[in-house]
Amino acid sequence: MPSIDVCFSPELLHLYNLTGKIAVVVDVLRATSSMVTALSHGVTHITPVSELEACLAYREKGYLVAAERDGLKADGFDLGNSPFHYLEEDRTGRFLAITTTNGTKAMRLSSSADEVLAGAFLNVGAVADYLRKAGKDVVVVCAGWKGLFNLEDTLFAGALADRLQGEFTFDHDATQAAWHLYNTAKEDKMGFLANASHVQRMKRLDILKDTEFCLQEDVYTVVPVLQGDILVAAE
Amino acid sequence: MPSIDVCFSPELLHLYNLTGKIAVVVDVLRATSSMVTALSHGVTHITPVSELEACLAYREKGYLVAAERDGLKADGFDLGNSPFHYLEEDRTGRFLAITTTNGTKAMRLSSSADEVLAGAFLNVGAVADYLRKAGKDVVVVCAGWKGLFNLEDTLFAGALADRLQGEFTFDHDATQAAWHLYNTAKEDKMGFLANASHVQRMKRLDILKDTEFCLQEDVYTVVPVLQGDILVAAE
Repeated sequence: MPSIDVCFSPELLHLYNLTGKIAVVVDVLRATSSMVTALSHGVTHITPVSELEACLAYREKGYLVAAERDGLKADGFDLGNSPFHYLEEDRTGRFLAITTTNGTKAMRLSSSADEVLAGAFLNVGAVADYLRKAGKDVVVVCAGWKGLFNLEDTLFAGALADRLQGEFTFDHDATQAAWHLYNTAKEDKMGFLANASHVQRMKRLDILKDTEFCLQEDVYTVVPVLQGDILVAAE
Repeated sequence: MPSIDVCFSPELLHLYNLTGKIAVVVDVLRATSSMVTALSHGVTHITPVSELEACLAYREKGYLVAAERDGLKADGFDLGNSPFHYLEEDRTGRFLAITTTNGTKAMRLSSSADEVLAGAFLNVGAVADYLRKAGKDVVVVCAGWKGLFNLEDTLFAGALADRLQGEFTFDHDATQAAWHLYNTAKEDKMGFLANASHVQRMKRLDILKDTEFCLQEDVYTVVPVLQGDILVAAE
């Protein structure tokens, strides 16, 4: 039986061997949630970028460019990091460059895996289906917050483990912790996260609406998969 | 109000600022549990050592020397790492050198803290009392297992947070996760840990008895505190 393991921070990823495995990168608030939403609403290619300036340069190539600073759309960009921005207009066929410090780092560090997916609550069921079909060992790579453990990415790891229970082993302490936390939180994830550090930061910026959106499960069926440096929807 | 934070692995400790804070190092199975037991049964000084050979060299200075390899007492040593070894004979006034790879590393990396304590379920109430009196910010440093998150050290962090609830803030995601996990586990920690990786390893070696002993709360009132490279009982 394949196994599902969880890495709570990119800073711990050097302790994991990703060879032959599938890495599921998650940054629930809000990078991977926005990526899933974008690919579900017409965007065809996503380039994750660490730096604001490098991201903005993609505009000259005709890309939509997305970036936030301190929770708001950064000056000169088409979109911020809110998933709602992808619901507002028709984005059919557009290419997107998006800045995400924690998420881009996690994806880059996961490149030794056989495949790198982007996961979020919004597509958790589709990711679980994909992993079942692949039948390989899985490592959920939590983007965290500046290298630190965070609750929302951990809950996603627990939700994914929950979907795969009985079909994947979870004999790793991190997987068990994530699964228990998800089971404590699942009836009211918003309430559970009310005191989480990131939600506290976001509350101050009136973007709780984004958090509620990002905590919904199975809204989309797209599975973003990394091909080179670009995320596209898996076939 | 002072805060209690939790670092799940020595590999993440560089992200924490320990200046002005108290670090509580925990390696429940079994290093810090054995240290607490030793100081409670007559040992007066403990030198934690990373390497087997360096530890054995302390014997020439009249120290008791303790080491395990693969869960058993290492050849040529007086004691293994089981806390039961400190209950068998009178150890009054003895100095002890003990090998503990994960625990020693965690203590060394915590040296920028104002004070470094050794915590275990066996003395969790005494540690909480000590921290209340000190009134400083606290970081629980989980020794983990080869740099990875582990459940038993996390449960200790949650137990300590639980004792300090209302007197210390826990506005860090790691603290909240540890506290929730402890509350899920507390009625049956042994059952909760039955599938944990370290307990699985220990089961294979017939040392579940040690685990049961180490999961008991408030057996001892000693608080080991680091003075230079040596742990002694706090006054």
